Amino acid sequence: MCDTNTDDLKNIGEFGLIENIKSWLDSKDSNIDANVVGIGDDAAVINKISDKILTSIDTLVEGTHFTRDITNFHELGWKSLAVNISDIAAMGGIPKYALISFACPEGTKIENLKQFYFGFQELAKLAKVRLIGGDTVKTSEKIVVSVSIIGETINGNYFLRSGAKAGDFVCVTGTFGDAAFGLKQLLLDKLVKNYFTDRFNKPMPRFLEAKILGEKNLANAMIDVSDGLVFSLYEIAEKSNLGILIEKNKIPISQQLQKILKNLDYALYGGEDYELIFTVSEKNINEVVNSLKNVNIIGNMTDVFAGVRMKSENDKTENLVKKGYSAF
Amino acid sequence: MCDTNTDDLKNIGEFGLIENIKSWLDSKDSNIDANVVGIGDDAAVINKISDKILTSIDTLVEGTHFTRDITNFHELGWKSLAVNISDIAAMGGIPKYALISFACPEGTKIENLKQFYFGFQELAKLAKVRLIGGDTVKTSEKIVVSVSIIGETINGNYFLRSGAKAGDFVCVTGTFGDAAFGLKQLLLDKLVKNYFTDRFNKPMPRFLEAKILGEKNLANAMIDVSDGLVFSLYEIAEKSNLGILIEKNKIPISQQLQKILKNLDYALYGGEDYELIFTVSEKNINEVVNSLKNVNIIGNMTDVFAGVRMKSENDKTENLVKKGYSAF
Repeated sequence: MCDTNTDDLKNIGEFGLIENIKSWLDSKDSNIDANVVGIGDDAAVINKISDKILTSIDTLVEGTHFTRDITNFHELGWKSLAVNISDIAAMGGIPKYALISFACPEGTKIENLKQFYFGFQELAKLAKVRLIGGDTVKTSEKIVVSVSIIGETINGNYFLRSGAKAGDFVCVTGTFGDAAFGLKQLLLDKLVKNYFTDRFNKPMPRFLEAKILGEKNLANAMIDVSDGLVFSLYEIAEKSNLGILIEKNKIPISQQLQKILKNLDYALYGGEDYELIFTVSEKNINEVVNSLKNVNIIGNMTDVFAGVRMKSENDKTENLVKKGYSAF
Repeated sequence: MCDTNTDDLKNIGEFGLIENIKSWLDSKDSNIDANVVGIGDDAAVINKISDKILTSIDTLVEGTHFTRDITNFHELGWKSLAVNISDIAAMGGIPKYALISFACPEGTKIENLKQFYFGFQELAKLAKVRLIGGDTVKTSEKIVVSVSIIGETINGNYFLRSGAKAGDFVCVTGTFGDAAFGLKQLLLDKLVKNYFTDRFNKPMPRFLEAKILGEKNLANAMIDVSDGLVFSLYEIAEKSNLGILIEKNKIPISQQLQKILKNLDYALYGGEDYELIFTVSEKNINEVVNSLKNVNIIGNMTDVFAGVRMKSENDKTENLVKKGYSAF
């Protein structure tokens, strides 16, 4: 990229940037909320939210969670919001408001910042999330994006990792392994763009499914899957002090991935799918299956904590190892 | 510092760290709040807060806002919360809950992280702020700390930068220039520790004063001073579309700084004091002066926007330049 002094952050400064951000958002923002004092003061003011508030912060660091050659600014904007929406979804809540802290070198191009905010806003509109504040600060080299999010519960319902009951069905949304396989492809060829790379760079957090679960209070425990399916299953098992037995042939894998891979490694241990795992009592399972598209039952909570185990087609049971996923 | 593999972040991992953080906070935390689901799930759950919520995010970047040789981890923890509490104070609200995103190299010593959280918690206890979540992520080199904060309004009152009225008194808390002078001393000798360096490394945000102003709805506009007195005065003037005339001999300067400096440069243009500037109607000014210790009237809002001007003892008036403050 050519470097001119007329279009980078150093040239317009933080306060010039705030005006730019406002204009980028206005032109894209169809969900203006008169009850909010947003960007431009010391703090944002939010009126009228449910009695129980959900809040979370998540950070994407260049070199740790993304690199600029395989994730562009638009995708980074989308993803930085997606991982936060996913946290609120994992509680069964509705995401409402977000703040961005964007730390970047002062040579960062305004066009790139614009793409970042457009990517952020693209998902924000879909999920009805309003950007209400934040700051932009200077780093020497690496980009660090922190997003904090505020959501609300529906009828006061929320689901912790610790809420699973023995006998609960273990359900999941979507399919597993696609994002990690997408990253693998990008690491081999940074120009490739397909279903898998989109799942890595523009994951769709499950806010619609979470809303149904929260509204009807259908889950006992829930978590989103950023560190891999098995890792997240362990989180529910450990926090609930129970075991989990899943069935190998029930693990949902996309047709695209099935065509390519013979083994389950990506599905079990690949991260960044941002699907939901949730546990459901017998009395609610029919309602879950009927209300939610694209949900699969993959196993059950067992009554004693014995880690996470997997039953094969031939009824053999193996213990799965808890290991986290690291992108880079 | 000697480097062993038994006591750094790489060795215990993110999840080991979460357990450590919980133990550090428990041992220091006297304000446990049963209405909160805090650290350890996908998002925090907050019950019962006022109808109007205040929220903000602020980030400290190593090399931009601090360096490790002049700000230790304890001070960094304090300051990362202080700058956020100051944002809520600047709205006239009460800070309640905080989330930390701590990005650091994986070789970071656990003892240093502990000092960071102890510093954070020291101020959190004073200000009755509860740490309810966050994440810890890996950077290649530089530390980046983002804190998001949630506060509440009192009786629905809050003060924007844009709320000043012509004729309002312009009031300030505390004294100006000490923090910037402290930084200057630290840049000359990183081992020096005194009143000035403490004001730079452990600023005390004005949450007590803000609470009184919010409770009694005494201010029309308010801002905190991170970028310097004149810069923040300009923010109020511009956003309120009015002018400000201050009196040179009314600008509060600490006795310590008066002894050393002949001119006003540090007081006018030094940043990071985290004092409050607020404007007050004539009908409220007596109540302000009687209710708040350590407050000074430094001037008035004028009815036409003509920037920020300063009147000297000899009745000469000069226009002040809007320029921001940059630590490094």
